[in-house]
Amino acid sequence: MRQIDVIGIGAGDPGHLTLQAVAAIARADVFFLLDKGEAKDSMIRLRRDILAAHARPGHRVAEGRDPDRDRTPADYTGTIADWRTRRAAVMAGLIADLADGETGAFLVWGDPALYDSTIAILDEILSAGGVPFTYTVVPGVSSVSALAARHRTGLNRVGRPFQVTTGRRLAEGWPDGVDDVVVMLDAQQAFTAYTGQDVHIYWGAYLGTPDEIAVEGPLAEVADEILRVRAEARERHGWIMDTYLLRRGGS
Amino acid sequence: MRQIDVIGIGAGDPGHLTLQAVAAIARADVFFLLDKGEAKDSMIRLRRDILAAHARPGHRVAEGRDPDRDRTPADYTGTIADWRTRRAAVMAGLIADLADGETGAFLVWGDPALYDSTIAILDEILSAGGVPFTYTVVPGVSSVSALAARHRTGLNRVGRPFQVTTGRRLAEGWPDGVDDVVVMLDAQQAFTAYTGQDVHIYWGAYLGTPDEIAVEGPLAEVADEILRVRAEARERHGWIMDTYLLRRGGS
Ligand SMILES: C[S@@+](CC[C@H](N)C(=O)[O-])C[C@H]1O[C@@H](n2cnc3c(N)ncnc32)[C@H](O)[C@@H]1O
Ligand SMILES: C[S@@+](CC[C@H](N)C(=O)[O-])C[C@H]1O[C@@H](n2cnc3c(N)ncnc32)[C@H](O)[C@@H]1O
Repeated sequence: MRQIDVIGIGAGDPGHLTLQAVAAIARADVFFLLDKGEAKDSMIRLRRDILAAHARPGHRVAEGRDPDRDRTPADYTGTIADWRTRRAAVMAGLIADLADGETGAFLVWGDPALYDSTIAILDEILSAGGVPFTYTVVPGVSSVSALAARHRTGLNRVGRPFQVTTGRRLAEGWPDGVDDVVVMLDAQQAFTAYTGQDVHIYWGAYLGTPDEIAVEGPLAEVADEILRVRAEARERHGWIMDTYLLRRGGS
Repeated sequence: MRQIDVIGIGAGDPGHLTLQAVAAIARADVFFLLDKGEAKDSMIRLRRDILAAHARPGHRVAEGRDPDRDRTPADYTGTIADWRTRRAAVMAGLIADLADGETGAFLVWGDPALYDSTIAILDEILSAGGVPFTYTVVPGVSSVSALAARHRTGLNRVGRPFQVTTGRRLAEGWPDGVDDVVVMLDAQQAFTAYTGQDVHIYWGAYLGTPDEIAVEGPLAEVADEILRVRAEARERHGWIMDTYLLRRGGS
């Protein structure tokens, strides 16, 4: 039987790697890489450093070409579903090259449970009934945990809920029933809609990497600074990943 | 200056420890332990094993007595605030024993950002202006990430939000605006209110420990099994920690 490990590697700091992840990396025969075709320097560097430090001598790296996808689709869910199916075909091809008894690994940014498609795609491949394999998931430190640690804050307030959502959703309105909202995948700086409210923001980009930036304060006071710093950094690096926590009614 | 590290140690598996946490543990002169006065065997064992494996020779352990608290208070927030203040006094006493230039560490279960009071209490001590110190937070693998990894599922569905809340809140009603809800701190099995709906549950107790139990399925079909397994395990261990994800409208 082929064995696959889906390994959360943390959100940018090589020190986010868990001992369990280190052991899983050391055990893998093959690492599957899907190149995003984008120049995400520090992500590629982290992956390379992690393999150099922890993979066993003689391990192989199997690269697949990540299918292109429309980044601003009209039909978001449909576009993602289609992209997933194409990605599943690429991943199934990589897995089929695994010899019986070998272990393959996917290194997943942050925690595999958070806005990542690897698990869903493996399930899709299994239910399509092609090449058989078993898989396990190794949890990781998410960018959300990294954000909170960087700002030394909790995600929830005492006994209260919080929501994790996307920039696209936040742009449609403040979520019902929560005063604490974590926002990921925000290409449109949706926080700017809330500068007129009593909201505190904890913002971070490239968290855990040498390029880490963090800004925190009342949203009305720091929104412009975040927009400026974000635009500059994005220009300099050619890409950005940022996450933030919005806290309504007191920091 | 005194330095404090608040170190997330993961949710029960010694392999959840990050390399960053290992380094912080190896650097600490003193570990502060607040004994809960409850027999949480596997938590105490994990802490002891972690210190044995990673703390430097000659490290000290300073124990404080965690103040008692009403577990079923009428005024939840007020009771917690009062308990925090008493806990702050105990923690400030421990920190005051740290020599200048020494580093102290709090080992926090899971991720320090999730339903944990350590950060808020340190802020309370600092703003009271007693003994001065600086502190950092090391993020950890939360029980939520451990739950999702155990069940090999994502927390969110494509492009959609999820909420993290407490059993107490869930008992008041299904949260607005989300179909995916993670529930922690549930002493009342609040999920039983939703067996009549199209809800899938991913439940886990003692995740990451040798006592780990996991049950998953349509809520209507597995609710009774969870109640039974939970009651038996709680009886056997004398305590339980469990977490679950409720997914409305399809698994
Ligand atoms: C496709 S999601 C993957 C999330 C990942 N699985 C995790 O647990 O962090 C990518 C989003 O995660 C956030 N993100 C990931 N790494 C980050 C980092 N180092 N700093 C800030 N945000 C990050 C950003 O919001 C980004 O748009
Ligand atoms: C006070 S909160 C602390 C949460 C912790 N900071 C974290 O990140 O997991 C305690 C709650 O976390 C959940 N929990 C913590 N560890 C767990 C485990 N190993 N298995 C299942 N649930 C756990 C339970 O819901 C429990 O009531």
